[in-house]
Amino acid sequence: MNPVTIALIGGSGQMGRWFQRFFTGQGVTVLSADVDTRETPQEVAARADVVILSVPIPKVVAIAGELAPHLRPEAALMDITSVKQRPLDAMLKAFPGEVVGTHPLFGPKEKSIEGRTVVLCPGRGERWLNWLKDLLERAGARVKVTSATEHDRLMAVVQGLSHFVLIALEKSIRQLGVSPQDLEDYSTPTFATLHRLARRLLSQDASLYACIQLANPANRPALRALDDAVADILYFIQRQNADGLVRLLEEIKEGFGGEQEL
Amino acid sequence: MNPVTIALIGGSGQMGRWFQRFFTGQGVTVLSADVDTRETPQEVAARADVVILSVPIPKVVAIAGELAPHLRPEAALMDITSVKQRPLDAMLKAFPGEVVGTHPLFGPKEKSIEGRTVVLCPGRGERWLNWLKDLLERAGARVKVTSATEHDRLMAVVQGLSHFVLIALEKSIRQLGVSPQDLEDYSTPTFATLHRLARRLLSQDASLYACIQLANPANRPALRALDDAVADILYFIQRQNADGLVRLLEEIKEGFGGEQEL
Repeated sequence: MNPVTIALIGGSGQMGRWFQRFFTGQGVTVLSADVDTRETPQEVAARADVVILSVPIPKVVAIAGELAPHLRPEAALMDITSVKQRPLDAMLKAFPGEVVGTHPLFGPKEKSIEGRTVVLCPGRGERWLNWLKDLLERAGARVKVTSATEHDRLMAVVQGLSHFVLIALEKSIRQLGVSPQDLEDYSTPTFATLHRLARRLLSQDASLYACIQLANPANRPALRALDDAVADILYFIQRQNADGLVRLLEEIKEGFGGEQEL
Repeated sequence: MNPVTIALIGGSGQMGRWFQRFFTGQGVTVLSADVDTRETPQEVAARADVVILSVPIPKVVAIAGELAPHLRPEAALMDITSVKQRPLDAMLKAFPGEVVGTHPLFGPKEKSIEGRTVVLCPGRGERWLNWLKDLLERAGARVKVTSATEHDRLMAVVQGLSHFVLIALEKSIRQLGVSPQDLEDYSTPTFATLHRLARRLLSQDASLYACIQLANPANRPALRALDDAVADILYFIQRQNADGLVRLLEEIKEGFGGEQEL
């Protein structure tokens, strides 16, 4: 295979720059374009084997539509957003060639891809899908290939619910007016970890984390489950029903199977 | 000061055994009694300078009442439960001598007290309070002295809310029927940490964690704040209101002040 050229659209963002460094390190030629670059997204897209959209979730539909007419017919169109059904549908609709949805399950602060997970959701074709899978695996990433629907179903838990509870915790703390100093002075090991995760999340791009809550259709059933769970736990607390709460805790534990020592 | 003798009541439990090892290592004579020991709690309590109740929260009131008549007048009565207002009130009512409520902010799996926090809530008197504070600090613990009310207000967040969100997350996951293998395969660094914290909590004594939810009167306003927070976040998600959700996230972030790099 000849040397490969990737066009990174939205290349000035944090993940865009991360993947520019990564792909360059893998010997791939990377053309990067953003709103502030000399070369336009259309220009670099026209010269690439693989065009990767590294843009905010709400922009994927419009940008896929704008760029698709400029792509080589044998090129592949990909994205790296945190939800997959809608972006993949938009790319498939806009571009008749190869289409792959990807989601790196890590943020721009990771030093290496080693041991990190990247999800690939096949859209159409598999030439560049296989090329990317091989490249990622050679670099030490764990690659999971699955459908966009399955991806979104799992991310509704892994990102949707887990971010939601961290945000809800911090919002409650603010509302209660507990001072940061008191939280530090009276912290337990569990709380310290939880609070650090939450503050790290909230210190990042708010619009990305808002999108993760808003743009995944699978979040709806997940949030219903969370709402039910909150109500179930509160039911026993409000009635001071220790036996009921113990039973609820033990039922959750049974779901873990054998993995007790953590 | 003569050699000190501590009676650990409930000494066969996990925290009881932890403190038996700890105090013995500090050169203190430790008498331990539990339901299954040859010597009864009354017998060891009668011979001790400091009597420490290491019993489940709901039992503190009854056991303090049973033991108090047996204590030396110059002894101190203490407990190590996770809430402080009610146990401290119960001990003060049962025993006319020195009373101290304590709460070690760590679990029985910690190897050392070094760097860990112990909260002391003065009840009556300060001779044994100061003795314990000095001993803990010499051993490397961080000691915080505060009122039982303030302790419970902070623990409603540090333990009450943080355990609550972890339990709610895991209960939702069970209800959604997502498999442990999928969660592992599609985990992010944030989710992996959160899920490990939650499983570790749930792998421990369910009745202790139920008590932490039930026995702290300050949990009530904290849970109201959490319930409000959940409703506020859901409000923006259900309306697909990205601007509103971004504003909510940024308002929380402003509360952190300068500590952005986490």
